[in-house]
Amino acid sequence: MNDTFLKACRGEKTAYTPIWIMRQAGRYLPDYQKVRENVTFLELCKTPELCVEVTMQPVDLLGVDAAILFSDILILMEAMGATLQFHEGRGPIFHHTIRDQVALDRLIVPDADEATWFVMETIRLLRKELQVPLIGFAGAPFTCATYLIEGGSSKVFWETKKMMYREPELFHNLMAKITDSTIFYLQAQARAGAQALQLFDSWVGILGPDDFAEFALPYVQRIMAALKPYDVPLIYFANNGATLLDLSVTSGADVIGLDWRIPIGEAIKKVGGKAVQGNLDPFALLLPKDRLRERIGRLLKDAEGAHGHIFNLGHGIHQFTPPEQAKFCVDTVHELSSR
Amino acid sequence: MNDTFLKACRGEKTAYTPIWIMRQAGRYLPDYQKVRENVTFLELCKTPELCVEVTMQPVDLLGVDAAILFSDILILMEAMGATLQFHEGRGPIFHHTIRDQVALDRLIVPDADEATWFVMETIRLLRKELQVPLIGFAGAPFTCATYLIEGGSSKVFWETKKMMYREPELFHNLMAKITDSTIFYLQAQARAGAQALQLFDSWVGILGPDDFAEFALPYVQRIMAALKPYDVPLIYFANNGATLLDLSVTSGADVIGLDWRIPIGEAIKKVGGKAVQGNLDPFALLLPKDRLRERIGRLLKDAEGAHGHIFNLGHGIHQFTPPEQAKFCVDTVHELSSR
Repeated sequence: MNDTFLKACRGEKTAYTPIWIMRQAGRYLPDYQKVRENVTFLELCKTPELCVEVTMQPVDLLGVDAAILFSDILILMEAMGATLQFHEGRGPIFHHTIRDQVALDRLIVPDADEATWFVMETIRLLRKELQVPLIGFAGAPFTCATYLIEGGSSKVFWETKKMMYREPELFHNLMAKITDSTIFYLQAQARAGAQALQLFDSWVGILGPDDFAEFALPYVQRIMAALKPYDVPLIYFANNGATLLDLSVTSGADVIGLDWRIPIGEAIKKVGGKAVQGNLDPFALLLPKDRLRERIGRLLKDAEGAHGHIFNLGHGIHQFTPPEQAKFCVDTVHELSSR
Repeated sequence: MNDTFLKACRGEKTAYTPIWIMRQAGRYLPDYQKVRENVTFLELCKTPELCVEVTMQPVDLLGVDAAILFSDILILMEAMGATLQFHEGRGPIFHHTIRDQVALDRLIVPDADEATWFVMETIRLLRKELQVPLIGFAGAPFTCATYLIEGGSSKVFWETKKMMYREPELFHNLMAKITDSTIFYLQAQARAGAQALQLFDSWVGILGPDDFAEFALPYVQRIMAALKPYDVPLIYFANNGATLLDLSVTSGADVIGLDWRIPIGEAIKKVGGKAVQGNLDPFALLLPKDRLRERIGRLLKDAEGAHGHIFNLGHGIHQFTPPEQAKFCVDTVHELSSR
């Protein structure tokens, strides 16, 4: 059992820097594409045997030090009663947006073991197969709220901020309900066997620090506090969150995920005694190997002062990335960081 | 003549904090919509009399302390030979992308007075009418390059980074050509009468600091240096550029534009003896008036240590913003900052 990842999360010494890659199970892998030929994205998410297969693919192919459950952050929103559809090329769509109390009242706080049994079953099956730790995850409440309010992805998040600024009580009610659901969901994942838990806050970077402190952070803190007793490392990734870092450190997470915009050395100074995860520009995987190797070396060196460093990209791997470049990255991190 | 804006740019004392609003001439104003009923966006950009009319609208309606030439950053790309189209709701499209040296060689460095005569004529006409300073502008080379390479707007800028990382020489050649054109363009604007010049780097926030220093900043520096002799305040706005701020300060600009993600007090510490421009969240204009007033007051207080502060939004005003909220913002900034 390779526990390098878990040790780094706890700030313990490791023989080398562990690495996994956000969206490592995904479209850039031909084996994943093959699985997707026969099922829709949502069918895949709800079929444990297939989820196990695609979760294992990057572990076997790339040699990463952690697996992450194959799923989607919006699966929980669907379990709450939102009608979710995925359209190829257009992303997720919620036809019934949540913009008033009546719509919000229709959402439920689901029993995670029942409503998302397929996620828990996937975790149990994976634990029998894996030789590396398994990460469970959910979307952070702010990010989930944007999808429900906007009805899908957004460029400017007009409706979200409109609700925040004009109907703050309604917004907080929505956040509270998502938070309750997320707590049950992640607690169930921990009980099923997830060995670390990550909250993805993909869109929180649209908030300035004051708004983040008022509208988003308290809910992340509530979730982290409720997961503490499960004694698994907790990771918080606030995408595009360089200016939120001082606040993110107070989230209760053990590990702070970083996007590529902030120099990792600067981030490490801010997070103090916590581990960091990141933060190579995902598109740097396009660099010629010698330049990629140089960049990885620089990043590892800049992260030397960290109280635990898990190497990762600063965002999900892009679908057109050559898999051999991802493999080269994993090998290079292992080689250059060997102590 | 109200020169509060120019004084603040130079770090001189002013009787109150001047304000203008990015995209203050635009779709949120019914008077602008009326003008647009009869012409396309590109026709509007190329008709000096209409440009004058829409440039003046927010000056008259809101009482801002500066006017900004009505135009678009892509007008110069068209003058360079790129075929530009605007589709309602889809944004700008360049059907012929620039992805190899042959395509790049087809672009020209235009004579700005000839190719973009309508811009210079607009400036000359405006100077006869305006009682506030007139800002001219261009897109920064990196942002312009992304449009030419991607063929329009982009979510992830895959092609741009692919060129940067795989064909850096081609990328630098493209940047150099855009830079040369931009220098002639902005020098012509200064000669025509623009009293300040702003470079908009809307998409540079996708770069980490190392890439910014290598691929984008040198070209901004080259432009600023070439404009220095014209003795008008130079403004650099790197959108989503909180982590680029230490480098942006070396751009040669007199004023550093800030988006809303960074607390203005923190930014002021970093920019030292330069003026700052910003940085209210554009969507904060949706707040009830008492809360908006509170927020403006806080921002003004946090900016008190600045070597010149020009109040602005942290991004362009959104098309659905009620104009009376923008007016309230302008009045409140004037009232609360009166010294």
